[in-house]
Amino acid sequence: MTKQTLILIQCQDAVGLVSNISNVLAKHKLNIITMREYVDEENNKFFVRVVCTGYVEESNGLYSHLKAVLPEKASISINPSKRKRIAVLVTKEHHCLADILVRNYFDTLNADVCAVIGNYDNLRDFAERFDIPYYHISHENKTKEDFEGELAVQLKALNPDFIVLAKFMRILSPSFVKEFEHRIINIHHSFLPAFIGANPYKQAHDRGVKIIGATAHFVTNDLDEGPIIVQNIKNIDHSYDVHKMKRTGQEIEKAVLTRAIQLIVEDRVMLNGNKTIVFKA
Amino acid sequence: MTKQTLILIQCQDAVGLVSNISNVLAKHKLNIITMREYVDEENNKFFVRVVCTGYVEESNGLYSHLKAVLPEKASISINPSKRKRIAVLVTKEHHCLADILVRNYFDTLNADVCAVIGNYDNLRDFAERFDIPYYHISHENKTKEDFEGELAVQLKALNPDFIVLAKFMRILSPSFVKEFEHRIINIHHSFLPAFIGANPYKQAHDRGVKIIGATAHFVTNDLDEGPIIVQNIKNIDHSYDVHKMKRTGQEIEKAVLTRAIQLIVEDRVMLNGNKTIVFKA
Amino acid sequence: MTKQTLILIQCQDAVGLVSNISNVLAKHKLNIITMREYVDEENNKFFVRVVCTGYVEESNGLYSHLKAVLPEKASISINPSKRKRIAVLVTKEHHCLADILVRNYFDTLNADVCAVIGNYDNLRDFAERFDIPYYHISHENKTKEDFEGELAVQLKALNPDFIVLAKFMRILSPSFVKEFEHRIINIHHSFLPAFIGANPYKQAHDRGVKIIGATAHFVTNDLDEGPIIVQNIKNIDHSYDVHKMKRTGQEIEKAVLTRAIQLIVEDRVMLNGNKTIVFKA
Amino acid sequence: MTKQTLILIQCQDAVGLVSNISNVLAKHKLNIITMREYVDEENNKFFVRVVCTGYVEESNGLYSHLKAVLPEKASISINPSKRKRIAVLVTKEHHCLADILVRNYFDTLNADVCAVIGNYDNLRDFAERFDIPYYHISHENKTKEDFEGELAVQLKALNPDFIVLAKFMRILSPSFVKEFEHRIINIHHSFLPAFIGANPYKQAHDRGVKIIGATAHFVTNDLDEGPIIVQNIKNIDHSYDVHKMKRTGQEIEKAVLTRAIQLIVEDRVMLNGNKTIVFKA
Repeated sequence: MTKQTLILIQCQDAVGLVSNISNVLAKHKLNIITMREYVDEENNKFFVRVVCTGYVEESNGLYSHLKAVLPEKASISINPSKRKRIAVLVTKEHHCLADILVRNYFDTLNADVCAVIGNYDNLRDFAERFDIPYYHISHENKTKEDFEGELAVQLKALNPDFIVLAKFMRILSPSFVKEFEHRIINIHHSFLPAFIGANPYKQAHDRGVKIIGATAHFVTNDLDEGPIIVQNIKNIDHSYDVHKMKRTGQEIEKAVLTRAIQLIVEDRVMLNGNKTIVFKA
Repeated sequence: MTKQTLILIQCQDAVGLVSNISNVLAKHKLNIITMREYVDEENNKFFVRVVCTGYVEESNGLYSHLKAVLPEKASISINPSKRKRIAVLVTKEHHCLADILVRNYFDTLNADVCAVIGNYDNLRDFAERFDIPYYHISHENKTKEDFEGELAVQLKALNPDFIVLAKFMRILSPSFVKEFEHRIINIHHSFLPAFIGANPYKQAHDRGVKIIGATAHFVTNDLDEGPIIVQNIKNIDHSYDVHKMKRTGQEIEKAVLTRAIQLIVEDRVMLNGNKTIVFKA
Repeated sequence: MTKQTLILIQCQDAVGLVSNISNVLAKHKLNIITMREYVDEENNKFFVRVVCTGYVEESNGLYSHLKAVLPEKASISINPSKRKRIAVLVTKEHHCLADILVRNYFDTLNADVCAVIGNYDNLRDFAERFDIPYYHISHENKTKEDFEGELAVQLKALNPDFIVLAKFMRILSPSFVKEFEHRIINIHHSFLPAFIGANPYKQAHDRGVKIIGATAHFVTNDLDEGPIIVQNIKNIDHSYDVHKMKRTGQEIEKAVLTRAIQLIVEDRVMLNGNKTIVFKA
Repeated sequence: MTKQTLILIQCQDAVGLVSNISNVLAKHKLNIITMREYVDEENNKFFVRVVCTGYVEESNGLYSHLKAVLPEKASISINPSKRKRIAVLVTKEHHCLADILVRNYFDTLNADVCAVIGNYDNLRDFAERFDIPYYHISHENKTKEDFEGELAVQLKALNPDFIVLAKFMRILSPSFVKEFEHRIINIHHSFLPAFIGANPYKQAHDRGVKIIGATAHFVTNDLDEGPIIVQNIKNIDHSYDVHKMKRTGQEIEKAVLTRAIQLIVEDRVMLNGNKTIVFKA
């Protein structure tokens, strides 16, 4: 495959941005393959993701040439598409973790899993069958502060690009979330904003819904669970008891989380306040 | 098509119910084509829908023979599958009404629309093109009580089996709902229980969801909008503004409401507290 | 809504096309809102659809300025987004026609239906309820040549932008198709390329498939039915007889054809040999 | 969980079958939880799947009591729901196998994988990480007869209930298929009956389809690939090259095959000539 350069830009909207950007790229002999842009008219913001053939060194002035033709405070990211490192946090459920580790083993994840951290030890065997380091950091008999302190030390040692909460059932404190801002991805076992809270499948069963869903989102300190990346659902009927709803929900959770990881490691997701821009193609 | 008899039974669960019921049917020379049952184990309730070839007069003792082999207080309904009459209530939006009237015109609704009642007059022209009586009952300059009084008078004169709220944007009072209990079907412009309340598409847009949906449900005096019959969704992305979300939502609303009507007029929906049992096939 | 200019370009691929195009647009004070491009690497072809705010007269040189910066033989279309006129051809089935005429009546089609032509007369009543001219051109007791001759005369008199075959069940001859090249859209009652030929639902039923579908496509003289625009499906099971499969199929046909019309009248579909490029957003 | 008895019956249709069957079950103190039946009216055949609470020994006369009330040649199967053993055959692609082995490891397959047989050796490492025996039986430098002979010997030694072809790319001869009749399940990398033959994703890409799919089916000696169990699809667009279509197709293949295995091992699939009856709930 030919070398490619990936560029992400986020700035105030203005006339001529596409022209300005494409001119700079043409001068650097970069041929645009796909250019996806989005204008948030409400907030007057411009987002663009450009893939070009041709490869540039960071030192060749592309950044400053782009900076020069863009509005003040523009955020420019050149070539962030280096392979990402992922740490996976789990509790007891295996379905999301298993899907991630299998893809990691067969190298179809477009990223590398550097470690699994569990607040229980029961998924160690599975992780180690794939030669992935497993760290057991129990939350038991510890304050939240101490538990999160241990987590943070381990995560800083691993230094992953993203932390994936693959059914990690501990609520993280604002200070922890702050420390790893925009780097934590969670799978929520419901179709947000429905059924926030404990036992979502029990809630859904009691309400008699005909659809269940799952939501992958960035973890922020917003009350409503952070910017949504991917959601999906499955139709169900009255014959589903809580157990069958949960089992069905797990299949959706797995698919939704894996899809979100894929979009993120391919730099297809940009943050826009409490929302995401997702350039799928 | 051969004459068929449709039987719906709802009672306390017990051993041998299917056997008891099928024996009675066999004695009446009714051949079971489909028999769908559901046991709500939590509440110890039994539901069954039986379609038989052969036709029985109500007078031939089938009802009492079934009654004799079922638990006390069993609800038995024989042959409710006579063609239903439907009254449609609307406000200003046309999409659900139009779909219903077209199907009514081409006789694919399995029911007859006897009238349209609008609290505005703007859908009169469309209804009258199909020779459907249109009653304009304005809510303006009236108390809720007076408005609903007029509605009730008209509905009682029409005497429909079901009242379909096809984007009827007035909230009905408990006493009105009580009067037409289990006969009012509503389309809710969101994927309940998310985005209850006004401007659901604005709410959904602000939250940045990746899916929008619609819910058809019976109207009851429960706070959470009543038993859900059908729900469906469509995937969306960041490029949908409120207007496009609404337009997309209207397509789902239309499909979901029409599907719910179809299930109801074919006697495929049974109520189970605040939930529904839907025997699709 | 602000005035917009829509530009469609199709040409050989080359380095710097996006830059060249956006420069010309910037000089004409056109601000790019969305620019979607596709490179067919196999055939070295470049396709782009640009929407700009600002409106240009055809006379102001934009065409020649674009022509000057593009490869030879580039096809450039400026502002084709004027409202399209559609003629609908039908046989006996109503479902697709009804959906089109209802949207036309409520002005949500983004196009105008100028006439319906039927080789039977049974849909006249429906069309006339919406004040749409209905022309009955029977195929009976005529050679194909004569029948198509009459059709062509009527269509030329109507001069529609697109001819929609909304379950028109006569096979059109190559010379007729040639005459209205790239302007005829058909709905095929199957998930092409499966079940080409007569009685597709009977074929599907005999084969025991678990999915049925429909395909909207341009009609060409290619053997395999022409470039596909939209396809969709619905899951079914063993309980579907041919009749129920057909009824279900009709719902998909309707949705797929309407979607295809919408994409075409918004100039979102470009032809690439026997395939289509569809810029949905 | 309470002990349950599962009964599958297939016979000529007749009046009173449900009554006859449910009477026998009631006499054996078996309480019907779900009873799903299907009448193939075209061929006058009756199919039923009954789940009862209560457990019967094979020796207690239930079989002969049922036999006595059913038409001649009725096929009756009592309690086939013992846990099934599965052998998986693979070539080089891992995606289906991986999903099966992960579910087997976490015991969510409702069956046991007894072995993997590959005509290449590259999936051995993965299988052995899960302690599953891997047999490499190469087809190279062998006649088809010899190759299949070795396969048959190994399979007879393993004696699985079902043989799953999880992207096993060798075409099996009629005599081999005959030997394991009704026990071989295949995943076909297309939406049958479209794109039968080699390189289905290349075919699909060349045709410009907007949907790709996969089909799980029983392998028979019928020309058209045998009775279909599960099919599913995914919408795609022009931007999918052959590689991306294949990768997307693999996700569908995996989901469809796993779903088919689940339905089969839960005895929810009955054969009806070249079709299947699938009682999902």
